[in-house]
Parts: sequence; C-alpha cells; structure tokens
Amino acid sequence: MMNANPLSAADTAQLEQLLLQIKHNTRNFLGYPVSKDFDYTPLMPFLAYPLNNLGDPFVASTYSVGSREMEKYVVEFFARLFRAPEDDWWGYVTNGGSEGNLYGLYLARELYPKGMVYYSEATHYSVQKNLHLLDMPSIVIRTQPNGEIDYDDLQNTIRMNRHMPVIILANIGTTMTEARDDVGRIKSILKELAIRHHYIHADGALSGSYSAFLDPRPAFDFQDGADSIAISGHKFIGSPIPCGVVVAKRSNRDRIARSVAYIGSMDTTITGSRNGHSPLFLWYAIRRLGLAGLKERAVHSLEMAAYTTSRLKEHDIPAWRNRDAITVVFPDPAPAIRRKWQLASEGGWSHIICMPNVHRQQIDQFISEMTTAAVEV
Amino acid sequence: MMNANPLSAADTAQLEQLLLQIKHNTRNFLGYPVSKDFDYTPLMPFLAYPLNNLGDPFVASTYSVGSREMEKYVVEFFARLFRAPEDDWWGYVTNGGSEGNLYGLYLARELYPKGMVYYSEATHYSVQKNLHLLDMPSIVIRTQPNGEIDYDDLQNTIRMNRHMPVIILANIGTTMTEARDDVGRIKSILKELAIRHHYIHADGALSGSYSAFLDPRPAFDFQDGADSIAISGHKFIGSPIPCGVVVAKRSNRDRIARSVAYIGSMDTTITGSRNGHSPLFLWYAIRRLGLAGLKERAVHSLEMAAYTTSRLKEHDIPAWRNRDAITVVFPDPAPAIRRKWQLASEGGWSHIICMPNVHRQQIDQFISEMTTAAVEV
Repeated sequence: MMNANPLSAADTAQLEQLLLQIKHNTRNFLGYPVSKDFDYTPLMPFLAYPLNNLGDPFVASTYSVGSREMEKYVVEFFARLFRAPEDDWWGYVTNGGSEGNLYGLYLARELYPKGMVYYSEATHYSVQKNLHLLDMPSIVIRTQPNGEIDYDDLQNTIRMNRHMPVIILANIGTTMTEARDDVGRIKSILKELAIRHHYIHADGALSGSYSAFLDPRPAFDFQDGADSIAISGHKFIGSPIPCGVVVAKRSNRDRIARSVAYIGSMDTTITGSRNGHSPLFLWYAIRRLGLAGLKERAVHSLEMAAYTTSRLKEHDIPAWRNRDAITVVFPDPAPAIRRKWQLASEGGWSHIICMPNVHRQQIDQFISEMTTAAVEV
Repeated sequence: MMNANPLSAADTAQLEQLLLQIKHNTRNFLGYPVSKDFDYTPLMPFLAYPLNNLGDPFVASTYSVGSREMEKYVVEFFARLFRAPEDDWWGYVTNGGSEGNLYGLYLARELYPKGMVYYSEATHYSVQKNLHLLDMPSIVIRTQPNGEIDYDDLQNTIRMNRHMPVIILANIGTTMTEARDDVGRIKSILKELAIRHHYIHADGALSGSYSAFLDPRPAFDFQDGADSIAISGHKFIGSPIPCGVVVAKRSNRDRIARSVAYIGSMDTTITGSRNGHSPLFLWYAIRRLGLAGLKERAVHSLEMAAYTTSRLKEHDIPAWRNRDAITVVFPDPAPAIRRKWQLASEGGWSHIICMPNVHRQQIDQFISEMTTAAVEV
C-alpha cells in the first residue's frame, strides 16, 4: 500500500491477540447459528482484488471486476430449491438475512402501500428495525408455547382489519426455538377471510436453508404461498462474512423497477456497491456440497439435535425441540456454562443450535460440564 | 467443510479463468474510484473465522467473535478527522457509502418526519433509491456547469417551502466531476431564510476521505455544519470488500434509539449481522498510513490529476478538473479506449480518477493511446 509504514509491534501484538481470542471463542460455539467448518482457502487470492457486483446481478455492468456469473448461479440454485415459479423469479446475494427481509418487506410495501404487516412476537428484532426504516404499520401476533405463530390470534386480528391488504412476515425457524410458521395454514386463513391483496415474506434465516430437504417438507416456499424468501449464507452454509440470499418474484421486482425507473436505473437492490466475494463463497460451497451434501448436513444436524435432547433428558433436564429442528431448548444452565458455550438466554431458557460442525464429542463435553457444573476452560 | 466433495475440474477452471480476468481487468482501472494498492495479507488468517460485529459497535455483545475494538477505533479516527463535537459523535463501519447515506437520511427523517429533502441533479442515483426506500419527499436542485449545486436555485426552492424542515444531501465529490457542495454556503442560506429545523448529510463517498487534508480545507464537516458524514472505505483507502464509515451525532442517534427501544434493543444500525472483517481492513490501513500517509496519498493523487490535465491539454484536449479534485474530465475518447480503461461516460464526457495507485506511466500510456488511437491490449 502506497505511503504505508510497517505495522507497529504493538499493533501486530493486538492483531495476534485478537486472532487467538477469536480461535478460542470459536471453539466453544454452541449457542449461535453459525457454521464454522468452512474452508475457502482456494478463494483467498480473490481477496487481493476489489470485487464489486454493483447493482442488479442480472443487468450487465461496465465495472468488470466481480462475480456476477457465480451470483446468478447461487440465486438460481435457491430459486429452484424454493420452488419459485419457473419464469418468475429474481434475487441477489445480500449482506445477511436482515437485508433480505428488508427487501421482501420493501417489495410488499411497494405493492400494497396501505398494507398492514403481521408477525409473531417470536420474530427477530431486526424485522422491527426494518419495519421502522420502511415506515410500515404492523401488529404483533401472539405465539404458541413452541414459538410458532398463534393462527387463531392471526385470523382474528386480520378479521378486524379486512379492509387492509395483508402483509405477513412468516418465521421459518424463530431465533429462540426454531419454530416454523406454516405458510400453508397462513394461506388458508387468507383464503377463508377472502383477503385478495396479500403478500407473504418468509424469513428463513437459519431453517430456510435446509427445510427443503425435510420429509415431510414444511410449508414455507413459493409453491406453499410465499412471495419472497430470505436466507442467511453464513449460518447453515457458513461464510467468514455475513451474507444471504433473497429470492422474490421477478414480476414484483419489476413493479418496483418501474417506479424507480425515473431515476434512470433499473437497479432495485438496497445498496450501491455490492460485495463480490460472498457470492463466490456461496457458489464454492454449493458446487462442492451439491444438493446431496446439503441434505447430509441437515441430516447430521437433526441427528445431533435428537441426540442432545435425549442425553439431556437422561439427566432429567426438561429439554425439547420443535419437530425437525436443530435447535434444542432447555432451562438456563449456570452462568459459567452459558458464558463458555456462548448460549443465548431468554425468559429462563437457553438453547444449543446443532450446526453441521457440531459433533457428539462436543455435546458430551457440554452435558458433562452442565450436569457436574465443572467447567473446563 | 463437512460432506463436501473436491471442486470439479470444470469449476476449478472457471475459478481460475475468473481470477485471470479480474487480474487483467484491474490492471487498466482508470475510470473507477477504487484504490487497488491494498495488501491485507496479514489479515487473511481471520477469514477462516465468522467475524460478526452484531449490532451497535459501542454496545457489548455476547457474540464474541468479532472486531468491535478496531471498529470503534476506526469510527473515532474519522469522527476526529471530521471535527465532530467532542462528546457528541457516534458511528459504525457500513457495507459501503450507500448504507452510510441511508443511515444519515434515516436519522434526518426521524428528526424531521415532515422534512423535505434537497439534493443536486449530480447526486448519485443510489441516494434516490435510498429516499424511495425511506419514503421521503424530495426536490432535485440544478447544478452549476462544474457539477456543484446551484446555490441560487437551492435558496429559491427552499424559500418556497419555508414551512417545511430542510434536509440537505450535500455531495462532497460528485460521481462525474467530483464537485463539492459547500456546506458553509448551504448553512448560510439556511440562516438567511431563518430555517431552524434543518439537517445536512454529507455524502463524502470519495472526496470525504481526503478533504480534511486539503489547504484551504473545503467546508464539508461537522464544524462546517454537517450533521452526519458517510464515506466509502473501498475507494480512497482501498478494501477487497465494499465498506464505509458513517459518523453522526450521538444525540441524534440516541433519539432513534429511544424510538426503537420498545422493541427491546438499542441497536439502530441498518442490518443485524455485521461484517467484522471490513473494520479490520480499515483499522490496518489507518494504523499503517496514519494521518501523514493518508495526506501523502491525497497529495500524490492531486499531483497526478494536475499532470493528467496538463498532458491532455498539451494535446489540445479540453480537459478540466474541479479545484483540489483528483477527477479529470474530458470529452469522450473512442469506444475502444473507454472499454479498455473502463471509463464511465455521461453526456459526452468521460473521466479519469487519479486514485493513489495511479502512476505517471499509466497516464502516459493512456494519453499516448488516446492521442494516437492505437490501443495496446
């Protein structure tokens, strides 16, 4: 770098210290939905270049240092996995699940400027930040004890607002208990109330990435009634940089494109410059895993969650999990245990998320520490 | 990565091909404001980990795999450089200049929900995308021939809307001609019209990063009247991943925090998960460059721009640049030249941006090709 000095000894030490700390803190990661078994070494040479997928990935750009082809592949991969209508899908690689939710809600607002948004109280707080940013009115719906939206409360609440278009943010895996709102049931409520103007956005941050591999398949995708789906890329798949994918109907995106066309651009993405490395990471992971590898990862995680639940129960700890969920919920363990394993806690409950990198040995160690209250540092 | 196959030969070839193409296309980069002389090799080990600076960098998080300390350092560095009030600054590292502008405009909207936004016609189109997302009304102001906002048009237009709070998006370096709107003059217009409710956001994507080193110092920062400033990190400093910094007044941010506090979070950042690698890149660059190194980079760029302008004029090409700008504007050269050197074009004019990595030899080659119309591939 021109005009740069070597890094000082103190700064170098600070960096080394941070790397050690990160290595250490990553080792005992059981509470966050972050896969850490990725290895993108072959992609490191790209990090010497300013990759930028400026604007809409499906529109060519004069800036030719990027990974548009790989990005389009990634979007198409998930569009198919989510059974998007053959000729009516579009999307892009985002900076994370939250940007994907922002995009879905933005599309909904543009289609139904007078719509009311409904979401359950188990929804991630970033959705409320998004709604505040978009200035959209909303109503919070009760949840069932397992974290799933209360369909009766949803139906009754919509019934009282039948004069307004309905916009639903469905959770495909809530943060605390990984509960899935059933998009099929939501759709039938809309039908029963004869709501013609509606939009369903599925927040599939964690579970959206693997729900397509479950049997029976949960109702969460385009064929089930979703109009857009957002997932995170750094969760189930894994990536050093937060990223995600949003898939929407091209026809809806085109409507926004028309409304912003007066500014001389068909670019409807949220930001201007766009990270060109994340699409490479996702492309690389998908190409190496394939559908089979992704499914195996899901199966492994589910097995590990089943194992964790039964091991905890053996010790009379009232652990439970939602059907086909990789998140295991149990009463808060001692603070030292929570700190060491970085367990999030809410209302007296903690959880372990059995990401694909979690193994039996780790679970055994965790359970041994939890039941003997002897934390190994 | 668990359950992954080796990359196929075809995929490996595709990757290698892309890397070659990127190397080649980066070589002849004169038209985009992207420094490419960065070298973050010592930071590559961090890319094996899922760094995530979740939420507000100034609020501690239980997720302890990140670079919050470095991020706070970067924000403070720019807060001081931009002469933010000693006890009233805040900010974070964004995914690019556009997110910083979105944040500044968001703050403005929350302070003045009935405000009218004014910006010049030379403003980057992503600002209009932001305003559309935020659903804020706006008026486009004429520009002077050099790309600077037309202060008379601004004054007359505000005069006709004196009943509304004034929100101004000032360009500190427009995309095409790197014109700087004078925040001091804008401030005096507001004073003359006795507008008490106003907010000025400075879009300093490119020039904001080095304007503080100019003498005389252009009027663009907090002491000049700005309420928030956004810059890009991947432009003047350089980064493989688009990033930026937004600095705002903490007191304004706190107002939003209060209004979103009912959702149980003081986090007012736009996204949820936040890239923890970009703050490391910026920290590393700033620590190695220091104020002196950054200033030298600016001086080099300005010298190169002066050199380019005079060399073009020697060949009777009517090149020009704004005062203390590193962008040189001249009539469109032949399409083959524009393609090779990736020159953006607008209304018959092209530009070269003399980023810190641009050297005399490159300029000489460009001018030789342009004047003889013999493109070397």
